[in-house]
Amino acid sequence: MSDFKALKQKVYEANMRLPELGLVLFTFGNASAADRKREVFAIKPSGVPYDELSPEDMVIVDFDGKVLEGEMRPSSDTETHAVLYKHWEHIGGVVHTHSTYATAWAQAQKDIPIMGTTHADHLTTDIPCAAPMSDDMIQGDYEEQTGYQILNALEDRGLSYEETEMILVGSHAPFTWGKSAEKAVYNSAVLEEVAKMACLSLQINPGAPRLKDTLIKKHWERKHGDDAYYGQGN
Amino acid sequence: MSDFKALKQKVYEANMRLPELGLVLFTFGNASAADRKREVFAIKPSGVPYDELSPEDMVIVDFDGKVLEGEMRPSSDTETHAVLYKHWEHIGGVVHTHSTYATAWAQAQKDIPIMGTTHADHLTTDIPCAAPMSDDMIQGDYEEQTGYQILNALEDRGLSYEETEMILVGSHAPFTWGKSAEKAVYNSAVLEEVAKMACLSLQINPGAPRLKDTLIKKHWERKHGDDAYYGQGN
Amino acid sequence: MSDFKALKQKVYEANMRLPELGLVLFTFGNASAADRKREVFAIKPSGVPYDELSPEDMVIVDFDGKVLEGEMRPSSDTETHAVLYKHWEHIGGVVHTHSTYATAWAQAQKDIPIMGTTHADHLTTDIPCAAPMSDDMIQGDYEEQTGYQILNALEDRGLSYEETEMILVGSHAPFTWGKSAEKAVYNSAVLEEVAKMACLSLQINPGAPRLKDTLIKKHWERKHGDDAYYGQGN
Amino acid sequence: MSDFKALKQKVYEANMRLPELGLVLFTFGNASAADRKREVFAIKPSGVPYDELSPEDMVIVDFDGKVLEGEMRPSSDTETHAVLYKHWEHIGGVVHTHSTYATAWAQAQKDIPIMGTTHADHLTTDIPCAAPMSDDMIQGDYEEQTGYQILNALEDRGLSYEETEMILVGSHAPFTWGKSAEKAVYNSAVLEEVAKMACLSLQINPGAPRLKDTLIKKHWERKHGDDAYYGQGN
Repeated sequence: MSDFKALKQKVYEANMRLPELGLVLFTFGNASAADRKREVFAIKPSGVPYDELSPEDMVIVDFDGKVLEGEMRPSSDTETHAVLYKHWEHIGGVVHTHSTYATAWAQAQKDIPIMGTTHADHLTTDIPCAAPMSDDMIQGDYEEQTGYQILNALEDRGLSYEETEMILVGSHAPFTWGKSAEKAVYNSAVLEEVAKMACLSLQINPGAPRLKDTLIKKHWERKHGDDAYYGQGN
Repeated sequence: MSDFKALKQKVYEANMRLPELGLVLFTFGNASAADRKREVFAIKPSGVPYDELSPEDMVIVDFDGKVLEGEMRPSSDTETHAVLYKHWEHIGGVVHTHSTYATAWAQAQKDIPIMGTTHADHLTTDIPCAAPMSDDMIQGDYEEQTGYQILNALEDRGLSYEETEMILVGSHAPFTWGKSAEKAVYNSAVLEEVAKMACLSLQINPGAPRLKDTLIKKHWERKHGDDAYYGQGN
Repeated sequence: MSDFKALKQKVYEANMRLPELGLVLFTFGNASAADRKREVFAIKPSGVPYDELSPEDMVIVDFDGKVLEGEMRPSSDTETHAVLYKHWEHIGGVVHTHSTYATAWAQAQKDIPIMGTTHADHLTTDIPCAAPMSDDMIQGDYEEQTGYQILNALEDRGLSYEETEMILVGSHAPFTWGKSAEKAVYNSAVLEEVAKMACLSLQINPGAPRLKDTLIKKHWERKHGDDAYYGQGN
Repeated sequence: MSDFKALKQKVYEANMRLPELGLVLFTFGNASAADRKREVFAIKPSGVPYDELSPEDMVIVDFDGKVLEGEMRPSSDTETHAVLYKHWEHIGGVVHTHSTYATAWAQAQKDIPIMGTTHADHLTTDIPCAAPMSDDMIQGDYEEQTGYQILNALEDRGLSYEETEMILVGSHAPFTWGKSAEKAVYNSAVLEEVAKMACLSLQINPGAPRLKDTLIKKHWERKHGDDAYYGQGN
């Protein structure tokens, strides 16, 4: 029996949430979950429809993107996940989707401006849209370079991956992450909803202002600050 | 056994309607129901997903926001509900959501103009969007002050809470209320639908006019006037 | 036992299709079905949620709007239905909804232009938007006058109710009709879809042209002309 | 027993996927599947609602559009399918829908620009919108001429039907095809999603750029090139 049974089960469940939440069509998208002690992660196999997946199909890969266990080829985006796990030591899950509104913003090559408390409950910054990758990066090891494009975009803007758990890759689509695969899935759904709200707000009022700093701070801190009082404190 | 079993059951059911009606995602939103004689209300616990809720999880709070019974921490928005119950003696329920279109209008910081009879069947005024709160209010007791922001916005516009049972808080999201929690839930769904229709009407015709006063009066009165003839008269 | 059992069953089923097709929320909307020989129609009772309806609740009314049988008050829009049945001898069903996109066009006070074959498969003209009613009509017998507003709008434009089976009442919402209640329900769903497509087409290309006359004629005739070849010819 | 039982079953299943995927309303749309050795295809009967279909209802037609077997009249669009099968020897399935966003672009008479990798995963070109047909073509054998309009639009733009498996017919609606009926259905759903994303991207940023050539090439080749590494290689 696989040593990774629990990890595979966890990432299977995370993947199955994506169609339930309306974030993926057919084989689009993928979720992974890491076992940080063993420096491996489990990820969806490439191009398999969600309703044909089983936990045993999940592929075990190390943080350099090398397959350790699995009968199927892992997601074509595996190396992007690997780069994020390798560089960000506190994440336990990564999700990639082509969800409709988030992808529309990525195609528009625009950051999603922070316009309301729904956004501020989850992050204090605009949701960054990384520039489309350079020709060199695309023609090189494309998926690995996508990981570096994400790392660099956060660094260039002075953002911490522990506070900003989502990004758009310009002309492409969103990636999210978090302490667990479950949290990364949650972030993908929140991103899609925030992307839709921002799109609609700007249709209603093209001059709608950015959220004021005091509200950004308040909503973030009541959920995530030292004196957070949202939730059950666990 | 709790003295508040029936009240908890009622507010549990009101909360469970929110995901059914597509008004909330994950743990967003909360509904409360008051027992006005005892000057208490029951409310959803904070940060718990709807599919994990049970009636016993509901928290009993007095009109000053003090917890009287319950094993869990009440919704972080509890003090906003408390302020509304304390000041408006004829309401029995309050609902807060981040429903997509209503929140988009709140982020746009625009009142929803009364443009059709769907709107006039429920209220005779534009749906007010309270200004975003001042820094002092945000940095003070934020949730309590949100309640006062709502009270003040209605008062400034000369609106009665018994006729206008819904509001947007600018940069944030909608609150609704009514004689019962069930009515407050109903109002949240109506608000979301009216918000979507108004958004679309202005896309189709940016110069679309406000509903004429005779139609506002007629539709309101056939449902709510002394000689109302909509419904079964109960 | 009621003499109208079959008629009530038919109109019950027509009403229940409205929430299934996503055309109504809560108690919004109503469908009726006529027995033209007996000069009566059955209609939904006023203000009752769809999931609480039963066939026996349907109310039997004559073409002057007088209730003949039923324990409940009929839809507040009953007189509008009655006027249409009284004046249009070949219709067997009428439906009124506040479906989202059709109502958005009604609020925008714009005819829905014929832009594609989806529209032309069902009617050869723009979908008319009757002007909002005059104050006299609103303050008089409002629902009866709504029927006359519909009759007059078709007449003013030289349209036949047998070819144009749908209309928007400005600032209000759509009405549809047809040889049967089932056809009127079908028309309500088609109208909503055509309204959505037209709204989107004009967002994509504000100068999108009207459908050319040869295509209007072709699509209408292949479904409805003397040599129609769409469907199974029954 | 029919010699075409397996073919009918396959095309029945393809048709039933269309309402499941939200691509059709009532009787709109149709899917066909070819048996290229026998030079025949099976297609949905005309004007029958999806929930009343059974495999035996499928009609067998040759590549000139002549009915070989079936109790019902085939889809009114049968001759369009026949023209495509006759001229394109490597296709095994054709689908026609009036899906909402794709039809909105067809009504807008605009090609859908390639703006992101979701699009490039499936084709390397803008999705062409064929001009509305000439009066001569409409008044002649309309459905057969629709097939030629599609053939000509691809040829005029120098596109291969094996790489571009979808098109919009201006003022009308989309057609898709592929090696199998299942692939043609897949393409219809992808087209609808890509059409929605492009519509939204242009609302967010009317000046959003076309996808760069290196990304078009990369995404196409990782799925479809000689060294494709997406999927399980079968």
